[in-house]
Amino acid sequence: MENRKIPDNKIKIPIIPVFDPIEELNMYTSLGSLHTFIKGSKIISPGIPFYSIIYLISGQLEASIVSRTGEEKYLFEICKNCIGVAINPNDDHEFQITAVKDCIVYFFTLDMMVEILSQDANLLKKFILNIVQKVHYFEHQARDLYQCRSSSRVFSFLYDLCLTKGKRVNDHYELAVENISQKMIAKITGTHPVTVCKLFTYLSREGIIKKNKKVIKIYDLNKLCNLIADEELTY
Amino acid sequence: MENRKIPDNKIKIPIIPVFDPIEELNMYTSLGSLHTFIKGSKIISPGIPFYSIIYLISGQLEASIVSRTGEEKYLFEICKNCIGVAINPNDDHEFQITAVKDCIVYFFTLDMMVEILSQDANLLKKFILNIVQKVHYFEHQARDLYQCRSSSRVFSFLYDLCLTKGKRVNDHYELAVENISQKMIAKITGTHPVTVCKLFTYLSREGIIKKNKKVIKIYDLNKLCNLIADEELTY
Repeated sequence: MENRKIPDNKIKIPIIPVFDPIEELNMYTSLGSLHTFIKGSKIISPGIPFYSIIYLISGQLEASIVSRTGEEKYLFEICKNCIGVAINPNDDHEFQITAVKDCIVYFFTLDMMVEILSQDANLLKKFILNIVQKVHYFEHQARDLYQCRSSSRVFSFLYDLCLTKGKRVNDHYELAVENISQKMIAKITGTHPVTVCKLFTYLSREGIIKKNKKVIKIYDLNKLCNLIADEELTY
Repeated sequence: MENRKIPDNKIKIPIIPVFDPIEELNMYTSLGSLHTFIKGSKIISPGIPFYSIIYLISGQLEASIVSRTGEEKYLFEICKNCIGVAINPNDDHEFQITAVKDCIVYFFTLDMMVEILSQDANLLKKFILNIVQKVHYFEHQARDLYQCRSSSRVFSFLYDLCLTKGKRVNDHYELAVENISQKMIAKITGTHPVTVCKLFTYLSREGIIKKNKKVIKIYDLNKLCNLIADEELTY
């Protein structure tokens, strides 16, 4: 068992912003309050105080942050057994959590969660690592938005996704993208959808990828990798 | 006492990225290991695994993240009684923590910290809120880097700083900026130093501010506020 310890504590920065599930919370749901939300409804809205930890039993939630001018910036997904730490007691917070599917969730007050975590060291460790994973993700995102061109962000997203989820098939890699639309890639990478579309057109024209709605076939992973650092690229 | 509860749990997003101190950890330093670092030395370097929580007794640390090309992106400061959760067991992490002053720190292993937190509900709550504060800060930063022009980021930094730290003196506000150089503002807002310089020149020329090395005097806070949203500004 001791050997498994280090890999367990590793913090992976996800490519698609879905953070590690904490299934162990299933044991404590009797200490939370059960709520259901239909697709499209808002659990948290900017300016409306909310002070709970959200634990998702089924469905899917999307967290975003709204700007002074009302523009929305996508943050992350909350999937089955994942949490959202929605500690926003102020009436000037700018967070939003929306049900993108019908959802069943539990709310835990922070005090209740603290009580639960105090009694379960393993769960506490997982909980801390989960929030730290979010810190790391957004530190990386801030860096990439600051330092990288849109093309670099979109190409490294595609490259990293291919390395982790792509399947080698003969002379190319295949990447199932049914759930990852160009619109989604635009949201995750903080890039305008029109720019993402142009970049994919460029990659197709250069013979680096072939794509349809379900699959992206990547024929030249090296060339894709080199394009990440290309500061002169015009598309 | 009950009345104090909500304000205590409020998560303030800092303007200068220094997160809430956790003085209560002073009681547990005997469970950590003591280290000293001279100014300029690196506690954490990219690619070198490190797996501890850092608690600063004296001095000052700066956390940053390095890019694929070696370029550095400033993240935050660690000041007296503040923590850095440096859980980077992988040899491909990109974080860096540097002593900007001579420092005395304690390192706690994650397991030891979990043990400490399990026994002290108040400390645990503060610890969770501290990490969530970091998540919120970088979510906001990612939004601002994505949505806002440099001018908007720099002007809102100055505006927010004036609202929280400015002193009303006759017809203007005075802001002590001995520790907040233009270089620092560039780092915090993710803006090129040359741009920050141009923006300050613009503000001076328009009679909105007067500045020297120690103080910025703000004569027209409303105009500064309006400039945040000005998409057409040329400077």
